[in-house]
Amino acid sequence: MLKKCDLSKKTDDKTFADKIAPLQERLGELQRQLRDERIPVIIVIDGWNASGITMTIQELIRFLDPRGFTLASIGKPADEEQKHPLMWRFWNRIPAAGRIAIFARSWYSRALAEETDGPGWEKRVDRAICSINRFERNLSDDGTIFIKIFLHISKKEQKKRLLDRETNPLTSWMITKGDWDFHRDYDAYLPVIEEFLKKTDTPYAPWTVVGATDANYTVLTTYSTVIATLEKNIPLILHPKKQGTKTKFRFSPEIVPVVRRFAAPDLREKKEYEARVAAAQKKMRDLQYLLYKRNIPLAIVFEGRDAAGKGGTIMRLTHDLNPRGYSVMPVAVPNDDEKEHQYLWRFIRNYPAVGHITIYDRSWYGRVLVERVDGLCTKPEWKRAYTEINEMEEEFRNWGGGLLKFWLEVSPDEQLKRFTQRETDPHKQWKITEDDWKNREKWDLYGEAIDEMFAKTSTKYAPWTVIESDDKWYARTKTLETVAAYAQTLLE
Amino acid sequence: MLKKCDLSKKTDDKTFADKIAPLQERLGELQRQLRDERIPVIIVIDGWNASGITMTIQELIRFLDPRGFTLASIGKPADEEQKHPLMWRFWNRIPAAGRIAIFARSWYSRALAEETDGPGWEKRVDRAICSINRFERNLSDDGTIFIKIFLHISKKEQKKRLLDRETNPLTSWMITKGDWDFHRDYDAYLPVIEEFLKKTDTPYAPWTVVGATDANYTVLTTYSTVIATLEKNIPLILHPKKQGTKTKFRFSPEIVPVVRRFAAPDLREKKEYEARVAAAQKKMRDLQYLLYKRNIPLAIVFEGRDAAGKGGTIMRLTHDLNPRGYSVMPVAVPNDDEKEHQYLWRFIRNYPAVGHITIYDRSWYGRVLVERVDGLCTKPEWKRAYTEINEMEEEFRNWGGGLLKFWLEVSPDEQLKRFTQRETDPHKQWKITEDDWKNREKWDLYGEAIDEMFAKTSTKYAPWTVIESDDKWYARTKTLETVAAYAQTLLE
Repeated sequence: MLKKCDLSKKTDDKTFADKIAPLQERLGELQRQLRDERIPVIIVIDGWNASGITMTIQELIRFLDPRGFTLASIGKPADEEQKHPLMWRFWNRIPAAGRIAIFARSWYSRALAEETDGPGWEKRVDRAICSINRFERNLSDDGTIFIKIFLHISKKEQKKRLLDRETNPLTSWMITKGDWDFHRDYDAYLPVIEEFLKKTDTPYAPWTVVGATDANYTVLTTYSTVIATLEKNIPLILHPKKQGTKTKFRFSPEIVPVVRRFAAPDLREKKEYEARVAAAQKKMRDLQYLLYKRNIPLAIVFEGRDAAGKGGTIMRLTHDLNPRGYSVMPVAVPNDDEKEHQYLWRFIRNYPAVGHITIYDRSWYGRVLVERVDGLCTKPEWKRAYTEINEMEEEFRNWGGGLLKFWLEVSPDEQLKRFTQRETDPHKQWKITEDDWKNREKWDLYGEAIDEMFAKTSTKYAPWTVIESDDKWYARTKTLETVAAYAQTLLE
Repeated sequence: MLKKCDLSKKTDDKTFADKIAPLQERLGELQRQLRDERIPVIIVIDGWNASGITMTIQELIRFLDPRGFTLASIGKPADEEQKHPLMWRFWNRIPAAGRIAIFARSWYSRALAEETDGPGWEKRVDRAICSINRFERNLSDDGTIFIKIFLHISKKEQKKRLLDRETNPLTSWMITKGDWDFHRDYDAYLPVIEEFLKKTDTPYAPWTVVGATDANYTVLTTYSTVIATLEKNIPLILHPKKQGTKTKFRFSPEIVPVVRRFAAPDLREKKEYEARVAAAQKKMRDLQYLLYKRNIPLAIVFEGRDAAGKGGTIMRLTHDLNPRGYSVMPVAVPNDDEKEHQYLWRFIRNYPAVGHITIYDRSWYGRVLVERVDGLCTKPEWKRAYTEINEMEEEFRNWGGGLLKFWLEVSPDEQLKRFTQRETDPHKQWKITEDDWKNREKWDLYGEAIDEMFAKTSTKYAPWTVIESDDKWYARTKTLETVAAYAQTLLE
């Protein structure tokens, strides 16, 4: 894509002056339309050092309404970002419905900077490309418009610009040794970037390479590209045609049966139950320190029928954990802000940092459970979710995260017993709501959803573990011992 | 407060076991009440190294509903936090309505760690204490309950605990040279901490010093303190008595007249207007780089009558600025999340980082303008706001920030002309809403609010500048030249 790019294109000042004003006006109109239709847009301006990224953005935003866009200037990751997977910081910056997120540099520059060191880098870059394509496809499927522009200049032009900046006392501080190192290796990076662009030039997020030798030409082409992409895509989002999946690549994880085996003796003695739980708690406390030292993050998902005992189990699980090293994310109906973002957003934002534990009290599986059953999302949306979830979990595992998924199952009779108990015990009444009774009526619909979830998301790298929870002692013991055993394997 | 603390207190296991369960249950009930009544709570657990902060919190949260609290573990500031004033990171972590924020260490530890180095530290500590008291008073006035616990142990006990941890292979990594340095200087820190506690032991956020030699005693005392404080304060918040101000200290900034002087010739020639604006824009671009290099942040507030030209002026102001170094915060009606926090929260969160420029398109002055006029807050609330705002601005200036406040004034006739223009121009219709017409009817009410705002918040360190905006050329020229001249003074 770079090779075919004409680097000699120019636009004279007169033509520029004539053409720019109507484009600016049109972009303003489109921005208002996006806002009214609640369509999110991501504009990526990436390119070589000194290719004019900042200048282009400066011109692009000149007449945009500041209420409707944010500019993310992407450089080295901050402390907290270094403790999370590559795409985490970008998930954190996706635009809300109706807003434009402009990226000055992006996941492309960062993948190139962070994944090309040392032997084996090609494999890491391939993995990054896979993550990027999934990220862009997920958001595109969710209705986000992508506009990706790469500013291309020759090595000679780059040298000239670096020298210009370096000799200007106001801008000399901008140019570092790193810029010159990168310049020296221009020819080595060229094919890598070419490959990168080719592999991420997808139907849902295509690239536009702009020969950025001349500023006027660069700015006009950027405007036209942005406007043309919006004009083409807004109608497609408002009046979607029936389409095949947009996925170009295949992902078929190995499905494994849910884990049910557990060599637990009957726990008939309270003393025995307490001793085993206490031993698992102590073990978890020690393991937590080791995970922390080794920078291994652990995510534990709790799903299950209402009143199956998620809260009580989590309470026992965290009993001896150091509170500075774990957090519980209770998942309820999404709030306003969460509703304005793709559904995985709030869960990814809460990923455990390296060495930390996040316990999800309900999770992203809401998409294929309550949202499916209650019709809170469309059928194509929850159908698509199995793949999205499998991919997300695979990436989390590839990054080095531990992931455990528990399904706490109770029988209808036991649930009824617990509901009734909760209603009559004044200390427990707050635990039961009308929704619980309504969900109970949908027992079988949930059953179908659960079965399909197990069949499609119990993957080799993240299998489901079912906890038979009619007996609380058994359920808690099994859960805690499973967590401790799993944490142990992460250290081996 | 430390001197009087009895370090020999102990609770045996039997007494502990009997007493803890009802306390846990009571705390659970109170948590649900706080949630229902939407009262935010801040619990600070601070103290000496190895005094048992983590252990205490672990016990305290054991039966709390994870949906209702967050734990902030306060250590060294992250990258972004280092680029903001001391209290910024804590403003970022204040609890939403109905939630509990627990701080494992807090602004106290950080002020002690960050403000006691080098000569002149006493003065910096005093300033930090002043900031802390204002922070706590602001939130308390807004209905936040504060519970502050300091865990006190002797030097001997501290040594024993540090050695215990250091010799345990699971915890040895926790103990650093810094811990031992701090231990060595225990006696030197003692009076500093004593003074700190005394000066921040306020009626609205009192301290409880706990002799933390014995874990059982520490946990029980923490529980009782938290419960007693909540039981005392919840009714006071729900049924407030008429009270005097809670402020113990006085703050009377020097008030100066608003700035009106401007040696602008009549700008009758478009060319002259354009030349002067372009010159100021170019100057601002250069100054932006210098401010960045010198780590000086700049906040620019734009307030004014509807259709006075704020948007157009901001557009000219940012025309040549590097977009990576500034951002515009457009201020509209607060969203759900913002409504659940004290009104200054969203503005402080958007403070410019060092070297950056934040332009507020409307600002915290909404409290004493639209919120006052439209009755969106109570009279005591907006009356109090003048002090809160003056203090906030003073602290921002003390921290090293530049602050400019513009009031763009138009005459009623000119406003009517512009409203009508907007309604008839299809490209400008989106700019005018019914609210604009409603506000126009309240012209005089706004006039009163503006006059009082000028009289009370045009301080020596942050005076208002009035921009007479009937003539757009004049207004823009005056604004841009004022900004450039001010930015220049920040460098001198």
